[in-house]
Formats: sequence, structure tokens, C-alpha cells
Amino acid sequence: MIKAHGYAAKHSFSKLKPIGFEREEPGLGEVEIAVMFCGVCHSDVHQVRNEWGNSVYPCMPGHEIVGRVTRAGGDRSKFAAGDLVGVGCMIDSCRECAPCTGGEEQYCEGPNSWLATYNGPMKPAAMAGGTNAYGRDNTYGGYSDVLVAREEFVLRIPDKLSPKAAAPILCAGVTTWSPMKRWGVKAGDRVGVIGFGGLGDMAVKLARALGAEVYVFTTTTEKVADAGKLGATGVVEGDAEAYAKLGNSFDLLLSTVPEKHKVDPFVPLLKRDRAFVAVGALEQMSGYDNSELAKHRKSLAGSLIGSIAETQEVLDFCAEHGIAPEVQVIPIQEVNRAYKKIERGEVRYRYVIDMASLAAEVADA
Amino acid sequence: MIKAHGYAAKHSFSKLKPIGFEREEPGLGEVEIAVMFCGVCHSDVHQVRNEWGNSVYPCMPGHEIVGRVTRAGGDRSKFAAGDLVGVGCMIDSCRECAPCTGGEEQYCEGPNSWLATYNGPMKPAAMAGGTNAYGRDNTYGGYSDVLVAREEFVLRIPDKLSPKAAAPILCAGVTTWSPMKRWGVKAGDRVGVIGFGGLGDMAVKLARALGAEVYVFTTTTEKVADAGKLGATGVVEGDAEAYAKLGNSFDLLLSTVPEKHKVDPFVPLLKRDRAFVAVGALEQMSGYDNSELAKHRKSLAGSLIGSIAETQEVLDFCAEHGIAPEVQVIPIQEVNRAYKKIERGEVRYRYVIDMASLAAEVADA
Repeated sequence: MIKAHGYAAKHSFSKLKPIGFEREEPGLGEVEIAVMFCGVCHSDVHQVRNEWGNSVYPCMPGHEIVGRVTRAGGDRSKFAAGDLVGVGCMIDSCRECAPCTGGEEQYCEGPNSWLATYNGPMKPAAMAGGTNAYGRDNTYGGYSDVLVAREEFVLRIPDKLSPKAAAPILCAGVTTWSPMKRWGVKAGDRVGVIGFGGLGDMAVKLARALGAEVYVFTTTTEKVADAGKLGATGVVEGDAEAYAKLGNSFDLLLSTVPEKHKVDPFVPLLKRDRAFVAVGALEQMSGYDNSELAKHRKSLAGSLIGSIAETQEVLDFCAEHGIAPEVQVIPIQEVNRAYKKIERGEVRYRYVIDMASLAAEVADA
Repeated sequence: MIKAHGYAAKHSFSKLKPIGFEREEPGLGEVEIAVMFCGVCHSDVHQVRNEWGNSVYPCMPGHEIVGRVTRAGGDRSKFAAGDLVGVGCMIDSCRECAPCTGGEEQYCEGPNSWLATYNGPMKPAAMAGGTNAYGRDNTYGGYSDVLVAREEFVLRIPDKLSPKAAAPILCAGVTTWSPMKRWGVKAGDRVGVIGFGGLGDMAVKLARALGAEVYVFTTTTEKVADAGKLGATGVVEGDAEAYAKLGNSFDLLLSTVPEKHKVDPFVPLLKRDRAFVAVGALEQMSGYDNSELAKHRKSLAGSLIGSIAETQEVLDFCAEHGIAPEVQVIPIQEVNRAYKKIERGEVRYRYVIDMASLAAEVADA
């Protein structure tokens, strides 16, 4: 067993606190990684607080992980000690179902669906008729010093990316990239990004680099100037009346808002046959006007993170186009304060934990 | 001017009553039709009662019209007197916008959108900055003895179809056919039809003829046996618990329910990447669980009738496959009673008005 340290919450109402724990040694086809940086995703906050009702405790979040390989299990591993690598939301999947063999592991239809980097399988035993193919109910994420993952789920960080900036690409990046690829965003398109946080920042930069015009929809006045600086063609504050001026001109609307919101003010902005895709709110959305959908054959859709191939693709795309998310590097000792700021919408735009701060704490202890 | 007779409502609270009125003589490219049969669509009831808030009075419904050409405007018309023809929901469109030139007139983006067979343009002057390209605020539908339509919007009724059975194909038929084509229903697929009325009957028959398995979802016990007789592979009564047994096995879910209903019980039945398409309820639908959409990249969509080309296609397809809707032929004098039965869900499955009854009434007067 590997002795490990990390920050975890023991209950939905508790703060993240340091804990010592053990990880399994890397088996054949697995990779051990010394964590350097880990992004703080809004879904970390949701899950620590059990706001999606799926949390397992202790809950050690973190799925935007960058580090160096320390051990690769087996001689034929594609990784070697010293490689700069990343791990996103998944560390394994059934690897047998149609989505998995088709390279869309994030939609794994195996008995337990994919194995999340933290919080265990997407379908724990209770949802899967009592079985758990992964042999564990909980997994511990990247708020830790060491991680073990299947090598198929480990990404290469391109040389041109700084390790701290690469971290948020592993979730925020691929979560906005995947629907842009799926719904075919191309040069000359007009893309709307609803909500301007960690995902919104990535969405704007990626869509611009694909050659699209990008409009940001935000209710936070302080973010208006930023959105322009970070690449948005236009920023829309306010309500449906302000939106109406844009007409039905959008090829894709991407909602990155991490909670329930109204969709009806946005749908009229879409062109015929186009989609409003929500990636942030994994919860009940408001009612919708089917008259507006039917009259222009529009649709409302959802999209979940992205595949491993898409994750490598967006990392390489960011390296090639000089794209980096806006990050604020914090020591892990500040993570509880960071959560409060995230809940108040005060982060600009992604906290990334420098895991050297954890090593220092362990050394002090 | 042509002297015409029909049944119309003067207000949202009044019954349909006989009125005399005038129609313009057919101009170049227009066709005059002696109406033989007209189907009664649930949307007729909605619009007579102004339940969609778009009704113009007097309101003379009817957009499932079969009749014979009496005059074709111009020597070069593709129609001649005596031709058996049909008219559906549209009698004209802008003929210039991208959807129109692309053969999808039902999504016309002209200043007034398409010209409905009754109730005037889809975007009346008030919605179109004061302009009305069609020069008329109201149009009178097929509950009448004579009709005039642009020849591009007139369909040929194949010899193998009986005129009365052809009528519902012009709306109920194409409204269910168009999304099946758009979302690519093919042999071996599994299609769910939610709501089993005039549209549901057509949806089942068309999907079966395309080689799909079809399950009907109904809350009306008396319709269960019928659905099987009319071609359904299976019928599901009851609620989400009964649905769950079908798993995520559907390639398309088509809601033909003519009013708001819950979508969440149905979405889990879809396979990954597939759509729930509502064609009946042109109104506010209930809230939806974006978690279920995101976790399998599913979508909610709407679809509006179908194009003229699709209408001809579905007429020909029905003739080729021996498909006919279930109809109950009524004299026009029974139309108000028929509306009550439609509202109570008692029609089996489409009323079709025999317009000879109107001629007899006019002759008696």
C-alpha cells in the first residue's frame, strides 16, 4: 500500500481537513502520479456538500490533476517515470460497452458506468443491483499528494502548457470542448456562452480559437469587462429584452451555469435546427416553451465532460493555440475559503491548488 | 369573387356556425379546389378556443383537406380540373428565405413566416413590425365548400388512397413522418409514441412500415387493445415504474400529446444521443432533469408539421404501404359535438367531415 495524504470532508456539513490514507500499489496498466497541481471545480463544492445526493464520505475531491509519473505498472506501459501527465474526471471505465469501445468513456454503459476520479463509480452498487465491478465504493481525488489511475485514462501534458494552467483544461476545458465538437462549431459560427466562470472562460477561448464569434451572457457586472479582455466578441448583461436584439443568430448556446436556470430567454436566440446545451447544471431545469422549439426544430440537450481522446485533443489544441485558463494558484490550506468564494461567484476564474503546500504541511507534522 | 360557405366561430367562446363569405378568384399559380373531405385536428379545437392566443375571428378551421381541382390559374399550372388533390397546414410561404428555398417551408423565416390554411400568417403584422406580405390578416380553412391555394402547396392524392382516409395524412401524417425522417428512424429501431389519438395512430402505422418496433404510451385504458390491433408492438399504460422495465432502449420518442405533460418519466427510456420530440404540445412543457440529458447526451426537441415535399412523400408512402388512418366520417352539422368528444379524448381516432353535408345544407337554405 502507498501512504498518502490529502484533504477530505467527513460529512456534507464539514470542512475539508487533512487526512492520511492508503492507496493500492499500481497494478499492471496502472500509473502512479505525484500530484503537482489540482484545479478546484464547482462540482467539487457540489459533491463535498452532497448537493447532487451522490457523495460518499470521506469525500476527497479533485479531478483537474497535473503531476509527474513516479511509477508505471508493467514494462509495456506507454508512460515512464518523469512524464508530465494529467488526470481528469475518470480513472477507469468498463472498457467493454459500445460507448467505451467507441471512445466515449464518459457515457460508459457498463454495470457501474465509469469510475470517477473521486466519489467512486458513477453507478455505485446500490444503483447497479448490488454489484460493483471496480471493487470499491469510494475513490479519492486530486486534493492529495499521490494518485493511481489506469494508463488509458492518463493524458499527456504538452510541453508548451504550464502545469498549473493545464489543470483546468482536464475538466473545464474538455467539458466545453466536447459539445463544440459534437455540435460542430466552426469558423464563422456564432456561439453563446451562458455563465462566465471557469468553464465560461475556457468556452470563450476555445470557441474563438475555432474561429467563432462568441457572446457571453452574464448577470455579474464585474465580469463584463473581463469577458471582453479574455476574448469575447460581445457581452450581454441583463435579461430577455437585451437578448432579443441579437435575433435568432446563434449556432450553439452553451450553458456553463452550475445550477438551475431559465432556458426560455435563451432559446429564441438559436438559429433553426440548433441546440442549447447545458453542461453545468446537473439538476432539474425550469420548464420550457415547446412552441419555440417546434417552430424552428430547436433542441435542448445536455453533455457530460468529454472523452479521453477529446481531453488529449483539447490539451493539444490549447498548446497549439496558446490557450490557457485564468487561474489563481492557492495553497491547499486555503481551500475552504476558496469554496466560499466559489459559492459567492467571486473566483476569477479557476482556483488551482499548488500541491507543494500539502508536502510542506506533511513535512511539518 | 367566389361565393363560399363554411362553418366558423365568431369568438373564442362561440360554437362553429354556418357562414357565407367570399374568396378571391384564383390568380396565376393558384388553384381552386372543391372540398370533399376535411379532417378535424386537435389544433382546430385549440385555435377555435384561442388556446394558443393567436386566433383571428371569424375562425374557420380545417387543414386536412381533400378535394378536386375546379380551376387552375394559368395555362402552365401543373394541375388540371378534376385532379384529386390535398391541402395541409400551409397555403403559401415567402418562397425566398433559406428554409423555403431549401424545401422546408414549415420553418419559413420570411417577414410573416408561412401563410396558414386558416388563421392567417404565422407572424401577423403585429408580430412583424406592422407589415403583412400576404395582404390579409385572416384565412379561412377547409370547413368550407371551396378553397384557393398556391399550387406549390397543393398535393397530389395517389389513386390508391381513399379521399376520406387521405385527409388526416395532410397534417397528422406529415407531422409524425417529418420527425421520423429528421431523426432517421429505420428498420430495427425502437420508437415510442406518447399519446394515442389521431397523430399517434399515424405514428404507429408509419413507424411500423419503416420497419421499427413501436411502443404506445397511453393513459387511456380503452385504447390499449386498439393500439395493438392498429400495429403497436407493445402498449405501456401506467407510470414511470412501468416504463422502467423497457430500459434505455428507444431510438426516438415522439410525443403526440396535444397539451403540456411531464417529460422526465420518458427521457430515461432513450438510448444515448437520441431525442424526445414533442409535436403535439405547442406550449410550455414541464421542467426537465438536465442530469439525465447530460449523462447520456440526450435531447428534447420540437418539430412542426413537415415540408410540402415530405407531405407528398408521406402520401405516396401511405399509398404504397396500404396505410390509412382510422377515421369517423361525420356531417359538418355534428362538428361542435365532435369537438367536445375530442376534448374528452373520445374520438377514435380522427373525425373527417364529409363536405357533401355542407352542400346539402346550403341547397336547403
